[in-house]
Amino acid sequence: MAKKERIDDMGFGGLSLIQDEGGFRYGIDAVLLATFAADAVREPKRICDLGTGNGAVAMILLAKFRQAALTGVELQPQAADMARRSAVLNGFADRCEILTGDVRDLPFEESQREGFDLVVTNPPYVRGGGPMVSSRKEVALARHEIEGGLENFLDAAAALLRDHGTLCMVHRPSRLVDILSEGRRRHLEAKEILPVAPRKGKDPNLVLVRFLKNGGSELDLREPLYVYEGSDYSPSIMALYEREKG
Amino acid sequence: MAKKERIDDMGFGGLSLIQDEGGFRYGIDAVLLATFAADAVREPKRICDLGTGNGAVAMILLAKFRQAALTGVELQPQAADMARRSAVLNGFADRCEILTGDVRDLPFEESQREGFDLVVTNPPYVRGGGPMVSSRKEVALARHEIEGGLENFLDAAAALLRDHGTLCMVHRPSRLVDILSEGRRRHLEAKEILPVAPRKGKDPNLVLVRFLKNGGSELDLREPLYVYEGSDYSPSIMALYEREKG
Repeated sequence: MAKKERIDDMGFGGLSLIQDEGGFRYGIDAVLLATFAADAVREPKRICDLGTGNGAVAMILLAKFRQAALTGVELQPQAADMARRSAVLNGFADRCEILTGDVRDLPFEESQREGFDLVVTNPPYVRGGGPMVSSRKEVALARHEIEGGLENFLDAAAALLRDHGTLCMVHRPSRLVDILSEGRRRHLEAKEILPVAPRKGKDPNLVLVRFLKNGGSELDLREPLYVYEGSDYSPSIMALYEREKG
Repeated sequence: MAKKERIDDMGFGGLSLIQDEGGFRYGIDAVLLATFAADAVREPKRICDLGTGNGAVAMILLAKFRQAALTGVELQPQAADMARRSAVLNGFADRCEILTGDVRDLPFEESQREGFDLVVTNPPYVRGGGPMVSSRKEVALARHEIEGGLENFLDAAAALLRDHGTLCMVHRPSRLVDILSEGRRRHLEAKEILPVAPRKGKDPNLVLVRFLKNGGSELDLREPLYVYEGSDYSPSIMALYEREKG
């Protein structure tokens, strides 16, 4: 294991994750995206995780769907390498492939396209670069649309999904018009929005969005999920962790 | 007053509204739209209400904005006539004009276009006709997209609003992709979504959406407003009524 790395217990179905102490570490977004996606589909055979980072979402989905093969695409070689080693650590090596590559130039054969049942993505949230960009390059790339923005991730999902395949995305509510209208332009029709707010009395700061490739135009807007209650996780969030235990 | 009509106290700033007992009567949607719009703009001079019905939203806005002139457009002559008489009843006749006309063929001079500060609309919610269409024609026209759908209302709003004018709409969450993406196609950029749910534990069944003509692409998604708590209106809804009293 490289210096400054550590193995974290994800608190989730006995999963472990190799993380860089100074780099981009997984957060609640990854857990929310993975559990939202797991509820959205039944028995997917092929899953793709676009911008897989250190593999937090990928590990949870591989644990949830024991019959599925997952391909992760990650631009940053160090993060991709950690994801590969976490897959080995969790016993998923035979069902998990992590490709080092760019969503704008997908590292897939033509025959692999339009073949995925489920695509998940937690793309960089922040539009373009700008003064808030972290000086740590790996953190900046994960958070900002420096190398590939929302439209690139939607292009990639549209190219990879089979007809009526499902895309699940976590993003900021501020980008909802972009998310829904740029999705539709690519025949990725938003079918469900689950807003996530820090706590009651606060506006949502995340949205989980489920799209159906070539789906019809009706959408379900859900009541928000609240992450905290007082200084603890809310019962809804605790339930996500609880049901994975044992 | 015509047979089967009655004058209802709106419970709102002393306003009265003439309604047809057997026809389409105003509901919470109208109160929510009017109060949402009143919070969205400061001192509008010219307001347009597209699909004004019997004038519920119009009356509330005329009461809120004492310096504003309001033009309502309503397809159904009987409803338009009731709205005109309600305006007289409430002392708004000199600031209120109700045009009998179709949003698809706006009854405005060229010089009146692109001149409104605020457009509000509570368009028919239900796509097209179909088996659920009410047998009462006036109710069916108010609820179903028989004569003019979402896109026609957005076209009309885009034609009437000045640069950086505000559109406020109430509609169903199921249509959000249509609402946001068809808005953007007309340079009506959604800036705020306030979901409205019947009560806690239920998904929203209405959305209030604020658009800015030629606005930039960032949106605020709000925590839902809940209409009921037990068998009573929620404190949020009671507050809307309370602040109008006296």
